[in-house]
Amino acid sequence: MTSDRFHDEDPLLDELYAELYENDLQPLWRLKGLLPPEPVVTTRPHVWRAATLNRLAERSGELVGIDRGGDRRVLACANPGLSGLPYASSTLWAAVQYLGAGEVAPAHRHTPAALRFVLSGQGVWTLVDGDPLHMSRGDLVLTPSMSFHEHHNPGETPMTWMDVLDLPVVAALDAVFFEEGPSEEAGTRADPVSASELSFAGGPGLLPVRSGAAPAGPAPSPLLAYRWESTDRALTSQLSLGTDPEARVRFVDPTTGRDVLPTMRCEMTRVRRGGSSGAARQTGSRVATVLNGAGAASIGDQRFDVGPGDIFVVPSWASYELSAQEDELDVFSTSDAPVLEALNLYREAVVAP
Amino acid sequence: MTSDRFHDEDPLLDELYAELYENDLQPLWRLKGLLPPEPVVTTRPHVWRAATLNRLAERSGELVGIDRGGDRRVLACANPGLSGLPYASSTLWAAVQYLGAGEVAPAHRHTPAALRFVLSGQGVWTLVDGDPLHMSRGDLVLTPSMSFHEHHNPGETPMTWMDVLDLPVVAALDAVFFEEGPSEEAGTRADPVSASELSFAGGPGLLPVRSGAAPAGPAPSPLLAYRWESTDRALTSQLSLGTDPEARVRFVDPTTGRDVLPTMRCEMTRVRRGGSSGAARQTGSRVATVLNGAGAASIGDQRFDVGPGDIFVVPSWASYELSAQEDELDVFSTSDAPVLEALNLYREAVVAP
Amino acid sequence: MTSDRFHDEDPLLDELYAELYENDLQPLWRLKGLLPPEPVVTTRPHVWRAATLNRLAERSGELVGIDRGGDRRVLACANPGLSGLPYASSTLWAAVQYLGAGEVAPAHRHTPAALRFVLSGQGVWTLVDGDPLHMSRGDLVLTPSMSFHEHHNPGETPMTWMDVLDLPVVAALDAVFFEEGPSEEAGTRADPVSASELSFAGGPGLLPVRSGAAPAGPAPSPLLAYRWESTDRALTSQLSLGTDPEARVRFVDPTTGRDVLPTMRCEMTRVRRGGSSGAARQTGSRVATVLNGAGAASIGDQRFDVGPGDIFVVPSWASYELSAQEDELDVFSTSDAPVLEALNLYREAVVAP
Amino acid sequence: MTSDRFHDEDPLLDELYAELYENDLQPLWRLKGLLPPEPVVTTRPHVWRAATLNRLAERSGELVGIDRGGDRRVLACANPGLSGLPYASSTLWAAVQYLGAGEVAPAHRHTPAALRFVLSGQGVWTLVDGDPLHMSRGDLVLTPSMSFHEHHNPGETPMTWMDVLDLPVVAALDAVFFEEGPSEEAGTRADPVSASELSFAGGPGLLPVRSGAAPAGPAPSPLLAYRWESTDRALTSQLSLGTDPEARVRFVDPTTGRDVLPTMRCEMTRVRRGGSSGAARQTGSRVATVLNGAGAASIGDQRFDVGPGDIFVVPSWASYELSAQEDELDVFSTSDAPVLEALNLYREAVVAP
Repeated sequence: MTSDRFHDEDPLLDELYAELYENDLQPLWRLKGLLPPEPVVTTRPHVWRAATLNRLAERSGELVGIDRGGDRRVLACANPGLSGLPYASSTLWAAVQYLGAGEVAPAHRHTPAALRFVLSGQGVWTLVDGDPLHMSRGDLVLTPSMSFHEHHNPGETPMTWMDVLDLPVVAALDAVFFEEGPSEEAGTRADPVSASELSFAGGPGLLPVRSGAAPAGPAPSPLLAYRWESTDRALTSQLSLGTDPEARVRFVDPTTGRDVLPTMRCEMTRVRRGGSSGAARQTGSRVATVLNGAGAASIGDQRFDVGPGDIFVVPSWASYELSAQEDELDVFSTSDAPVLEALNLYREAVVAP
Repeated sequence: MTSDRFHDEDPLLDELYAELYENDLQPLWRLKGLLPPEPVVTTRPHVWRAATLNRLAERSGELVGIDRGGDRRVLACANPGLSGLPYASSTLWAAVQYLGAGEVAPAHRHTPAALRFVLSGQGVWTLVDGDPLHMSRGDLVLTPSMSFHEHHNPGETPMTWMDVLDLPVVAALDAVFFEEGPSEEAGTRADPVSASELSFAGGPGLLPVRSGAAPAGPAPSPLLAYRWESTDRALTSQLSLGTDPEARVRFVDPTTGRDVLPTMRCEMTRVRRGGSSGAARQTGSRVATVLNGAGAASIGDQRFDVGPGDIFVVPSWASYELSAQEDELDVFSTSDAPVLEALNLYREAVVAP
Repeated sequence: MTSDRFHDEDPLLDELYAELYENDLQPLWRLKGLLPPEPVVTTRPHVWRAATLNRLAERSGELVGIDRGGDRRVLACANPGLSGLPYASSTLWAAVQYLGAGEVAPAHRHTPAALRFVLSGQGVWTLVDGDPLHMSRGDLVLTPSMSFHEHHNPGETPMTWMDVLDLPVVAALDAVFFEEGPSEEAGTRADPVSASELSFAGGPGLLPVRSGAAPAGPAPSPLLAYRWESTDRALTSQLSLGTDPEARVRFVDPTTGRDVLPTMRCEMTRVRRGGSSGAARQTGSRVATVLNGAGAASIGDQRFDVGPGDIFVVPSWASYELSAQEDELDVFSTSDAPVLEALNLYREAVVAP
Repeated sequence: MTSDRFHDEDPLLDELYAELYENDLQPLWRLKGLLPPEPVVTTRPHVWRAATLNRLAERSGELVGIDRGGDRRVLACANPGLSGLPYASSTLWAAVQYLGAGEVAPAHRHTPAALRFVLSGQGVWTLVDGDPLHMSRGDLVLTPSMSFHEHHNPGETPMTWMDVLDLPVVAALDAVFFEEGPSEEAGTRADPVSASELSFAGGPGLLPVRSGAAPAGPAPSPLLAYRWESTDRALTSQLSLGTDPEARVRFVDPTTGRDVLPTMRCEMTRVRRGGSSGAARQTGSRVATVLNGAGAASIGDQRFDVGPGDIFVVPSWASYELSAQEDELDVFSTSDAPVLEALNLYREAVVAP
């Protein structure tokens, strides 16, 4: 048989199409763009500026209280390509959170996993299932899926940090659960000590011997805080080993070497003064922020100057390159790479200059 | 400090909110429903009836040709809760595909993985990376991510089958790639033999010894066709072992015991005459169809009579129960459970009667 | 510093050496051969002939009874290189076991894992934790570590089969535990049915859906019997796919694709008429037997004619090649390869002709 | 059929037994003790005293040179239960190694894996595949299977340390390979820096991002040195978290959380002053040594006073308990537990007081 092209001009087709739609059916041959040669991505490369973020966070602190009945005082980055959704990218939530002096963001938990990266200041304690984690500049603090978490600012100055969550992924999978929890009051602990941190205080390759089996499936890291002092030392050491233009460190579960969270990969990149990371692209999106230095982030065909506290987003399959200027450039980033890897959808490619 | 509730009535807030939106920021405390206690699911329980599916597929065959430049002749189930999206659920694509006598659906490949379940008829050959797989009633045929696949109907009667794809998940992750491929012509092989099937022809627990390492990450099954004769025997055997009201068989990669695809779980359930599977719910959605028998599918708080060829969908976290009537009820289903498990988001619960 | 060679001729050394030995110390520089360039293997290539095995097994059956208080009626292959140890190789026990008409070998269990391969006859039932497994020519039956097992011969003819155990490995690790168990009497079951076999009766890639998690560590196969009909079909199918001189099938756990036992790898090789497997060698030893056909086994620099029922052993790192003569040659073999792989000690190499 | 006991008194049996032995066969029913209820272990609890080890090591240094053609200057602990074998237990080699001022133990590699634990002194460099690792009191240094390793003492004082190898296991598996390698000269590096250590210098949970896939099978740790400062901090932190009488830290591969070597588990235990670890037993053997403090090791039904530098051995399935006296007791131990776990042979049990 010689098959013909779809002959949509047939007058009987209107009748067919109407009947299809009445019956909640759609003809594939009329659905354009379902299977494009390469990902058609609506998330746009975008930068939220530190100055704006800080100013509006402070202003929110002045105008908006915080209490048990409400949510966190959080400003969500809403990607301009996502039609008003409060997501930084199709798969990642990014936001700044502001906690005033003496304030408490009460305990709750949810299936979306969250992480906090501290861009400036110190003094807030995040309690994760009761374990007190101090927050200071450059630190990464995890609040894994379904762990109760609360934030306490016992000090006298407000503090702002970046939140990243996998909320868009969990929402797309119809798997969002939420529960409020019992809060401790700020300052009730005379001498807060993190059991999570102390359990891994020895160094790399030293694990406490515990009774009980490890979790069978994917699990978050039992180490919940990664201190800037350690990250900085790792980057410095890695750069000292060679002449590569950048050092890159991944934050992992020390008991497995896997990503800190089953859904998010966290890395810190240091680009040498005047150096460049080289352009590459990968499936899945990324949210990043500058901790130290100034430079440029080339994303897709755009180039953004970026500096401390700026938050920017790299869409799926967009070319991405970091360049440092007169100082070393330290960039923290979170991506959904573990999701893509788990589903056999991860791809990466170097982009020719 | 005694914190106050969010005091939205403050007149200065309008100004703040305006500025936030101008800067692509959204205040979390004004976003309702982001973190509900349980999943808020828009996918609705729904049944597409066999009679309708078959009639409209045939009618499409009469009116719409098939050719190289076009897509498959496929009618996509569009869940009425998904605002016109051509998806059966938030995470699964389900459709019927019709291939006329002598027709060829040419080769292409894409990152979304697909599977075919044959509800009636026989005679079509699906070639997966050139390996010819015959399709017959009750068979499951896989076309994994990025494997070239084409469908040939060398016979004299049209054939219809059900397609299920993980397209919504891959699209949500901005990871859809597509490529057309070289087709073989129907009938060019005098004696089609599937290397995939012959490699595993011995039986359970017998693997060909191959050189080369197994893939490191998640991978699809190298066995590409699961025949009804085997599935039927497995169900019969399982029922013979006890008095449980149902038997349930999972289709897996024989080299790993893991799901046939990294994104989709396929199972066949047989409910005894007059029996019931018991009600349970789980995160993630399911598309199912009846192969044999008639009965009822209770989904959420709705109860649907279902019979051969009906396609129905179970939304995430909805209660689900199958009941057989005067005959055994055989139901094939595909869910996104491997996705939820990989991301540590899988939950299940028995629903009290 | 210019270091000198060991100067053993020093007269004061005798005194030192005496003192060392008195203190349970030994000087490494006087221990020859501890670290040879390649393995120095005392296990010798050897064949135990079927005629001898059968004759002596029968004679044992005439002269030696079997009862609860004793062990099995088993003749252990004692490799002539192993100084009288009753082991076929340094790591494997191989034996023939004879069970007379009407006899019962009572239940016990032990940490060494065992497998049975049936070279002729049929009619014996092996119960593994109560699950009745019929034994027939060409079948492989597993009795994993610490599973109670007993053998019943309710028929009217004696039966002989080959046993292979990992006993030398378990003994070397000081981990042998043994326990007697409650026996069932032969014939107490009117209609013996194996739940293990029925659970996997569907075919490759079809698993029963069970509640409960899979074991975390290495575990034996839950499928306990592998039938010759299936093995034969697998080999025939594999040969039909190409022109390789041999087909090779591995017996695996259908739920994981891993070896049937954590310590032993079982494979069946079919060499085409007049063909050869090619010479290769690997670390770890192998016990093999011929099921069908006649041919030659070249082991190290020796060549043995082998026929049905002959048992032979391939020492670690010895070259090994099978050649068929006028018929296809079917050889069943068991090796300790999983042990070497688990410890990162597995090596293999093709041996140039 | 009523079966009889084995009736060995039959006069025809002598003839049968003679024929069996002639044919390299042995009747199981005459092999006593093959399958005992619990492991029958010939390795004996034993202590090698620090004073003796040090004195004889020094004496060996005076009398026995070291050179390219020879082996290391090593005194192997020969367990008195092992009939003269130079092994500390059935599965572990333990020894002291002495390297004089200015001496070099040249490069070689072998399949048995080794580790060094430094009981006193400092100043030796071990190069592992060229990576220079400084050795100092309390440090653990790995030389994994088939990595070239050499020891250099560029200083002016001799140094002694403990070696532990899996040699008995590798030898039992007929898998010993050995190769000499090219040596560097001591002092040729002006500023030795360990890439292995620098790669993991950041701290727990910080991994360098490398290109290239991780090894598929079991692999040794890429981190090759574990410093006492870190181990001490880990123990101190763990004790600070509660009131347990002991802290226990496992040395692991930081990229996987698995044991440092596929065959050996290394742990450091600190027992509080006056405390006790509690008695337990496990399959597999252990070699241990005291770093700090003094106390008692109860092994089986023996109790040994132990102090710094003593090396002692715990046989398989023997009860084992550590008690500290007036100071904290720090004990380093190596066991073959990863071997037993990999083969599904690991058992442990608390021993009632």
